[in-house]
Amino acid sequence: MTAATPSTPPLTYEQAGVVYDLIDPLKVAAQRAAAATAPHLAAHGFSEVPASRGESAYVVDVGPFYLASIVECLGSKALVADEMQRLTGRSFYAGIAQDTIAMAVNDLITVGATPLVVQAYWAAGGSDWFGDAQRAQALVAGWKAACDTCGVAWGGGETPALAGIVEAGRIDLAASCTGLVNPKSRLTLGDKLAVGDQIVLLAASGIHANGLSLARKLVERLPQGYLTPIDGGQTYGEALLAPTVLYSPVTEALAKAGIVPHYAANITGHGWRKLLRHPGTFTYRIHAVPPVPPVLRFIQQQAGQDDAEAYGTLNMGAGFALHVAAEDAERTVQIARGLGIGAWVAGAVEAGPKQLLIEPLGIRWEADALQLR
Amino acid sequence: MTAATPSTPPLTYEQAGVVYDLIDPLKVAAQRAAAATAPHLAAHGFSEVPASRGESAYVVDVGPFYLASIVECLGSKALVADEMQRLTGRSFYAGIAQDTIAMAVNDLITVGATPLVVQAYWAAGGSDWFGDAQRAQALVAGWKAACDTCGVAWGGGETPALAGIVEAGRIDLAASCTGLVNPKSRLTLGDKLAVGDQIVLLAASGIHANGLSLARKLVERLPQGYLTPIDGGQTYGEALLAPTVLYSPVTEALAKAGIVPHYAANITGHGWRKLLRHPGTFTYRIHAVPPVPPVLRFIQQQAGQDDAEAYGTLNMGAGFALHVAAEDAERTVQIARGLGIGAWVAGAVEAGPKQLLIEPLGIRWEADALQLR
Repeated sequence: MTAATPSTPPLTYEQAGVVYDLIDPLKVAAQRAAAATAPHLAAHGFSEVPASRGESAYVVDVGPFYLASIVECLGSKALVADEMQRLTGRSFYAGIAQDTIAMAVNDLITVGATPLVVQAYWAAGGSDWFGDAQRAQALVAGWKAACDTCGVAWGGGETPALAGIVEAGRIDLAASCTGLVNPKSRLTLGDKLAVGDQIVLLAASGIHANGLSLARKLVERLPQGYLTPIDGGQTYGEALLAPTVLYSPVTEALAKAGIVPHYAANITGHGWRKLLRHPGTFTYRIHAVPPVPPVLRFIQQQAGQDDAEAYGTLNMGAGFALHVAAEDAERTVQIARGLGIGAWVAGAVEAGPKQLLIEPLGIRWEADALQLR
Repeated sequence: MTAATPSTPPLTYEQAGVVYDLIDPLKVAAQRAAAATAPHLAAHGFSEVPASRGESAYVVDVGPFYLASIVECLGSKALVADEMQRLTGRSFYAGIAQDTIAMAVNDLITVGATPLVVQAYWAAGGSDWFGDAQRAQALVAGWKAACDTCGVAWGGGETPALAGIVEAGRIDLAASCTGLVNPKSRLTLGDKLAVGDQIVLLAASGIHANGLSLARKLVERLPQGYLTPIDGGQTYGEALLAPTVLYSPVTEALAKAGIVPHYAANITGHGWRKLLRHPGTFTYRIHAVPPVPPVLRFIQQQAGQDDAEAYGTLNMGAGFALHVAAEDAERTVQIARGLGIGAWVAGAVEAGPKQLLIEPLGIRWEADALQLR
């Protein structure tokens, strides 16, 4: 394993090419304009659920149930699959398909929705992308398998060839997902969150699909690149390409067991700072951290990140957080584990200023840690 | 105006870079895999509407109403806006936003759905795309205005920066749309289509967002390029960028007037061959063709297309078709015109072999004209 020398400067997310300052003014303008369109629903006899603005999925009250919808992008993980295919001859696009669906499904379920329909958005740099039959079939098979895992119908989608917009040989992958909160009592927008609730963390399989810009940048520092062996016996590239865990089987099983989470957070960009997403004023005290997947420990070490930087950027082994009533916590863990997904009662919601305390690591973040940068 | 000399060879769609043969095997595999996921809906107490497979939007029966969803890509029209911004200093992204929403909304309404929620998918080649404030604000303002026209709520979306996947300086635009067929009697999947029904065509504003690969390729033949003046006083570039007409105000007004179309076709790729989309065996006889927008006549002339090639590729002035009962035809026209959208009773559904006859042009297409190429 190649280790970063002490003289290697730490690598930040901005150095990896993502400049939030340029995106966020647009985001703010878009959010404001979007919010102003909500009254249109009244003409159809419906209304938005205002608390869903700014949450991970948008929710509309359509009477007998709530309608939730979302579109999500994979990000740059496909670039790793492309490079690994070049290096190994294997296609990793079955996993990439799962990653893409996970981006949408794992966000949609945070509001308590059952995902029902997924649409595929596969925009290639040219018609020739689809001419690699092994890769194309892997994408189709992985997409179908992820739909099977989540119990959603694959409705259809788009497969445009966008020469001049998408780079030659590349593909821009996204998924839209529509679901229902049914019965309406399953709505999870955070109003049930209370002091004494327990925080259950669900295991991540690896980096999932957030932090890939940083992970790809690191490759330039590794003499063996993606083929660098890491702890656990895999290469860096293989480990990066572990498919994102699909968490909807857990939330559906909880519903069947009569457990309604009080809040849920999909831990993606901004890492564990996402645990500060709820708008209320609570102190979140974490007393146990899950085991860190080798690939994430490797990235942390190679990038020279301290724990605060690593946990504030990457999932570090926790891909999803469920805030549940204390009496439901142990059962929630057992239900997740019964589905083969690691789970831990990792902390609790307390009265106090808005902050996240990760006690085993000595990390304390206040409310402003999650503000858009 | 520059005219194609007789020696200039005609330009086909494949020469413009879109190779359907490479896309379609994947599409067929994806459609097969997608269809196999439908049984998942039963576990949630719902079921798909099988006739919606292969139609423009996917429909699920959720009990009190039908749920319809879709994701649609703009295609390459943004490249024209980019070049025109370079040439004129003006941003055309307000219109581009409308085009993107139109791609999704105009497809969703073909099944009888009321569009309720739109999600934005704006994937840029880098964070710097969003740094052009004039362009970014135009995109936001145009998106909001299109939502206002359609009476939909803008739920949110994604604004990823995808360096290495999307080309630097470019943006990949798409929209997802979710709606409800409510009441369920508004479902328009074609089972009501009958001999004697009239075909109402709704006016297009120009090329809309299909045929742009061809339109862009033509620019190479024009000494003045996008600034070539065309009939009507606009430049070629300006005319190409006329925003796509949003047709959902028409379908919503029809519903309020108690008119349920028997079938609807969004005339996009494959031009008027989309009028053969319905799976039944009918003869569609067109006795009147709408006026051709100058930009489409110009493309036809410059590309050296005969009418069959032009009407089989471009909308040629008809952006949407509504098949209605004979007694509703004239009222349908009046309702559309009352909304400022040109409309004509252009033909009729007859008993006979599956074919489309465009009598004023001497065009006859049989069933196989719309097969995937």
